[in-house]
Amino acid sequence: MKSDGLLIVGEDLCEKLVGRQQAFDAVQAVFGAMAKGGAWNFPVIREALGHADVLYGFKSGFDRDGQVLGLKSGGYWPGNAAKGLTNHQSTVFLFDPDTGRLSALVGGNYLTAVRTAASSAVSIAHLARQDARVLGMVGAGHQSTFQLRAAAEQRDFEKVIAWNPHPDMLPRLAAVATEVGLEFEAVSQQELGAQADVIITITSAFEPLLMKDWIKPGTHLACMGTDTKGKQEVDADLVAAATVFTDEVAQSVTIGEAQHAINLGALTEDAIAPIGAVINGDHPGRTSDDQITLFDGTGVGLQDLAVASVAARLAEEADLAQRATL
Amino acid sequence: MKSDGLLIVGEDLCEKLVGRQQAFDAVQAVFGAMAKGGAWNFPVIREALGHADVLYGFKSGFDRDGQVLGLKSGGYWPGNAAKGLTNHQSTVFLFDPDTGRLSALVGGNYLTAVRTAASSAVSIAHLARQDARVLGMVGAGHQSTFQLRAAAEQRDFEKVIAWNPHPDMLPRLAAVATEVGLEFEAVSQQELGAQADVIITITSAFEPLLMKDWIKPGTHLACMGTDTKGKQEVDADLVAAATVFTDEVAQSVTIGEAQHAINLGALTEDAIAPIGAVINGDHPGRTSDDQITLFDGTGVGLQDLAVASVAARLAEEADLAQRATL
Repeated sequence: MKSDGLLIVGEDLCEKLVGRQQAFDAVQAVFGAMAKGGAWNFPVIREALGHADVLYGFKSGFDRDGQVLGLKSGGYWPGNAAKGLTNHQSTVFLFDPDTGRLSALVGGNYLTAVRTAASSAVSIAHLARQDARVLGMVGAGHQSTFQLRAAAEQRDFEKVIAWNPHPDMLPRLAAVATEVGLEFEAVSQQELGAQADVIITITSAFEPLLMKDWIKPGTHLACMGTDTKGKQEVDADLVAAATVFTDEVAQSVTIGEAQHAINLGALTEDAIAPIGAVINGDHPGRTSDDQITLFDGTGVGLQDLAVASVAARLAEEADLAQRATL
Repeated sequence: MKSDGLLIVGEDLCEKLVGRQQAFDAVQAVFGAMAKGGAWNFPVIREALGHADVLYGFKSGFDRDGQVLGLKSGGYWPGNAAKGLTNHQSTVFLFDPDTGRLSALVGGNYLTAVRTAASSAVSIAHLARQDARVLGMVGAGHQSTFQLRAAAEQRDFEKVIAWNPHPDMLPRLAAVATEVGLEFEAVSQQELGAQADVIITITSAFEPLLMKDWIKPGTHLACMGTDTKGKQEVDADLVAAATVFTDEVAQSVTIGEAQHAINLGALTEDAIAPIGAVINGDHPGRTSDDQITLFDGTGVGLQDLAVASVAARLAEEADLAQRATL
């Protein structure tokens, strides 16, 4: 972002400009930079405001390789839906690393969904078996449709099977599966484990939804829902039995899916590999067809900055951004 | 900030709209709220980027009493001056506490100087002797002129005396003194201590510039330059001998002027009072004419949010802000 003025890129423009492929490329590149030490996240700020039941905070970082500096502010406002607004509210701020001046303001709601989907898609691209045909979805909320669309492009899937604590939410996921040309079936949790070659979990669960014994050899799991101490989507024994990859090891062991296996002593921190090492060719990734691989997607600020920086660049090139002066 | 659109308030507008009295009132109010627990700062993020010799970070907080939520991003870019830009670059972001949506974007460079000056002015208003006539200034950089203007309004000063490590910078301060109708004299450090009734230190020093024995009884000191581990403006014995007040005790003992007296065991944390307690009438402040009072101004995010919120409100009321949509 070398522009003189301040670019303002709203939600609508982000949706128009940033597709799945751009998000995939941006997230893959920054994961690679992180694993080489060329990009790093700053400490996360997260605060309960004691007002409107809000959890609020900032994720920030610097991608020195890609020259992207900034932060995402975000929070969860439970009362927003009643006002016609998204409960999750995010905004991304980008700064010119050469001068410190604010260079772009980018709506973060759509981009958060897209970058999270890109993250599991990157893990599938690098870790799932090439012959994967059945995609299992655990969770059917707002994010799940983004996850499904991004995952569907990574392998020649034939079928989507899904389970959700509230089965009445599954038709939305079924509609997306149909739209991308995949068969859809609602199944039990056990059936999902028995059939799926790739599983994405994207819930806000606080207890395991999938047990180790239900999962077949060779499965790749992308656990995308756990981003807080106490949350959990899958059995700690399953995590311990899998080869574990993550976006950021420090988050994986404290607030990610791996926290429980770590706390039980069933997994050690040095057994967890950054997915960036696989991207960079410094880690072999999957080494056998029977191996269970698990990606612990905790969500880092640099992912947000990466996709927001794409949005700002494309908006500037197409001369579509609003502009302002500070 | 209840507006629907996003307000953008640039540096020029901040200078036009936010005067010393508004800054004083805003900073005084938020210090009071902090001391009552109605406002608090979030942890500070501060990072060396390993690029362009930059120190970069975020100060954030929530004033629940005043309903102001946000953050200031800021950093020091040593190469900016050569490009015709300010080395310190700051921007303030305000969010609607009821919805989490970004409500205002406010230039932070002028406001940082004004809120820092307001902070020492608040301390003088509440802690200096009423009969103070001589104002001593240690430091003559960019911030010092803001400090002088704000301090001059708090007592019936007759004279400004000043010392700076580089005496060639003093004429700028002299010109401001003359402008506000005060006599000006460049003095030695010892002479400054002997004459001044109120002293403001506003330097980037890493060793004491004023010793305890040079300061006369009854003096009020506002130490405004120390905001990092290792920085120091006055003798630790002077801090230990004074009645110490601060904006935020947690910062005072770790990165403020009090850090050295604390580290030497000459001062304890519970002996430091938040200035807000004096503002709220919960602490008597100065209790004798002979007492040396010292305000350790470390600089907190809530000060920035307070003045930025004034800028945004005034800009909206006068319909002068740029507007954008996210």
